[in-house]
Amino acid sequence: MVDMNNSENRLSLSDRINAVAPSATLAVDQKAKAMKAEGAGIIGFGAGEPDFPTPSYIVEAAAQACKEPKNHRYTPAQGLPELREAVAKKTKRDSGYEVDPQQVIITNGGKQAVYESVQLIINPGDEVIIPTPYWVTYPEAVKLAGGVPVEAIAGIEQNFIPSIEQLEALRTERTRAIFVNSPNNPTGAVWSDEQLETVAKWALEHDIWIISDEIYEHLSYDGAKVGHIGGIVPEIRKQLIVLNGVAKTYSMTGWRVGWMIAPEYVIKAAVKLQGHMTSNVSNVSQRAAIEAVGGSLEAVAQMREAFDRRRNAIVSALNEIPGVKCIKPSGAFYAFADVSGLLNRPAGPKNQTFESSLQLAQALLEQAHVACVPGEGFGVGGFLRFSYALADDDLDEGMRRFKSWADSGENL
Amino acid sequence: MVDMNNSENRLSLSDRINAVAPSATLAVDQKAKAMKAEGAGIIGFGAGEPDFPTPSYIVEAAAQACKEPKNHRYTPAQGLPELREAVAKKTKRDSGYEVDPQQVIITNGGKQAVYESVQLIINPGDEVIIPTPYWVTYPEAVKLAGGVPVEAIAGIEQNFIPSIEQLEALRTERTRAIFVNSPNNPTGAVWSDEQLETVAKWALEHDIWIISDEIYEHLSYDGAKVGHIGGIVPEIRKQLIVLNGVAKTYSMTGWRVGWMIAPEYVIKAAVKLQGHMTSNVSNVSQRAAIEAVGGSLEAVAQMREAFDRRRNAIVSALNEIPGVKCIKPSGAFYAFADVSGLLNRPAGPKNQTFESSLQLAQALLEQAHVACVPGEGFGVGGFLRFSYALADDDLDEGMRRFKSWADSGENL
Repeated sequence: MVDMNNSENRLSLSDRINAVAPSATLAVDQKAKAMKAEGAGIIGFGAGEPDFPTPSYIVEAAAQACKEPKNHRYTPAQGLPELREAVAKKTKRDSGYEVDPQQVIITNGGKQAVYESVQLIINPGDEVIIPTPYWVTYPEAVKLAGGVPVEAIAGIEQNFIPSIEQLEALRTERTRAIFVNSPNNPTGAVWSDEQLETVAKWALEHDIWIISDEIYEHLSYDGAKVGHIGGIVPEIRKQLIVLNGVAKTYSMTGWRVGWMIAPEYVIKAAVKLQGHMTSNVSNVSQRAAIEAVGGSLEAVAQMREAFDRRRNAIVSALNEIPGVKCIKPSGAFYAFADVSGLLNRPAGPKNQTFESSLQLAQALLEQAHVACVPGEGFGVGGFLRFSYALADDDLDEGMRRFKSWADSGENL
Repeated sequence: MVDMNNSENRLSLSDRINAVAPSATLAVDQKAKAMKAEGAGIIGFGAGEPDFPTPSYIVEAAAQACKEPKNHRYTPAQGLPELREAVAKKTKRDSGYEVDPQQVIITNGGKQAVYESVQLIINPGDEVIIPTPYWVTYPEAVKLAGGVPVEAIAGIEQNFIPSIEQLEALRTERTRAIFVNSPNNPTGAVWSDEQLETVAKWALEHDIWIISDEIYEHLSYDGAKVGHIGGIVPEIRKQLIVLNGVAKTYSMTGWRVGWMIAPEYVIKAAVKLQGHMTSNVSNVSQRAAIEAVGGSLEAVAQMREAFDRRRNAIVSALNEIPGVKCIKPSGAFYAFADVSGLLNRPAGPKNQTFESSLQLAQALLEQAHVACVPGEGFGVGGFLRFSYALADDDLDEGMRRFKSWADSGENL
């Protein structure tokens, strides 16, 4: 067999790919899955996916769609017209404003919508402001387009949401776009309508695109209102790219259906791009998504109830662990815990000194068989992200393990 | 409602997207579908998809997979291990050499494998040689990576396959890769083992990547042998990226499952890229593909029989139309007809003069209700591509319409 690992100079990979980090969330999840496959009883707080099956009426529609030959064929690259119509209707229902189905493109998950949005508007050297902590893919997508991610770091004391003064201080002549993600992954923070209005007016004043990732829109707690920026400030819609999908609302991560909503000329360009990147999303998945998007929000209401219970449980449990502090998040299904109290001092059963949350996460996985994602993946060290989209029992057991691991340290 | 079509200067789209042409094949297909939707009885020779349904045993597996909650979840971005193993096994069977499943990534159709291959190895300004006529996405994918597509134009007299002297004349210090696509879309040409060996040795000598698109490998006629470059010249595998998928072999275009095979470090980089672009392919589609790739080639043998019959029918019919010449293709399911005899002279029922095959294709669609793709989409004017992956009756009727349209011209 030929040696396949011989990377010669003239055959080296592109600069763009060498500049990009792997997805930290996927990496931890996969290491945990590999350990599981080897028989270790890992409790996984890593992946951002609900533990519920896709609702049965959606599954039935998909199974039926498999059997119809028309669904074995290509669809338009932009997506099935019925699905784009359902997205337009849903946008009116949830965000309170009209969009034309021509302003919608169906993408391979919300992730492809992120990637495409940046490819569509960013030239090499252009700057994109990213509120930090951020979802791992934002800065990497910007780098893949040759752009420069500019981090607007917001700490726990400001609920992880940057102030307009911070954004203004980071703005340059090359600032072309800003990501807004509310409810936020990894922090669970929900922006207030006032905060959304302020950033929209600032973007309007300076001709800056807003890329609004609304994938967690239906997951908020304690009555926290999730505002839609395009509904609050209608004028922004001419420079607004909305990203969304079925993954989190309908427990459909594996089906890979997302979408982008933008001005029609932007969507036309997106169709051109996607026509050469992947073409249409799986036809059967689109059929399933029609059922999901066109249907009610009953299933997500049930999930929200379970998530809310787990949210209370995990935040209490985390705050009982010495060295850990966690504020109660208002949305999504993540607890973003400050673990700086466990760093730079002996910790854990082996009294090791961890210099970073990355090292801490690795130790927790290996020694306590608890998988979570270190803050470094989201742009800030000293934190761990725990997804609470897992079964209640697993959540309790995982927290027990973490506490036991921390309690076993001598110096806390 | 806000004006969504207002493209302001500071809010203009990226240079990369402005440089890219839409997919010509998809465009014609969509115009034809739109005319159909309006009630016109269009005969579609446009799309590159078999008219057969996906074989029922694959469909059954997919429908079953829909109902298992584990398939509602993410898979590794690289794809399900079982599917990657099936691809490795299939490669051994069909191409005669071993690959490790770690050398395989599952992509959203063969198209994503094309896009990713170029993103992985091309820096801005790098040149990629593309035998022309080419599949529409190759040059656009190169441009999307900032690369320079270099056309190696090969006419009908050389069976549309460029000679090594042509390639050598186009080679520069910036030449990084060459596309090889046998059987070819749009021409149906099949490269001989000798031609494959020659290009592999040339690529080895000059440290040039070969991107080998083998999506039509199981569709050849009259006993034409389809060679696999990695099997013929084992040394090339260290700089070989193979692209393939289930679409054409198992009539599964709409399921969107392709793959890339390359040295392991290349695939690791591809996983990183795909982890930020789209992540995994639809889980259910991957389950369907396991059934397809792991199964027999009986279904494609049956399709091949039908395609062979249609191939003979369409080539005869085309050559009976005044002004049209078509050589009999050895593979794929396209007839690439020289229609230069219908250009630059009065033609058709309205005795119009068409200056390009693009204009001719539009007239055929509008006046004869026959959809095909003009050669311009594949890099050469003066040709029309007719997919013969449609029902025999439709094929006959479409050819009758084309002939009647051409016969109605006064001057032929």
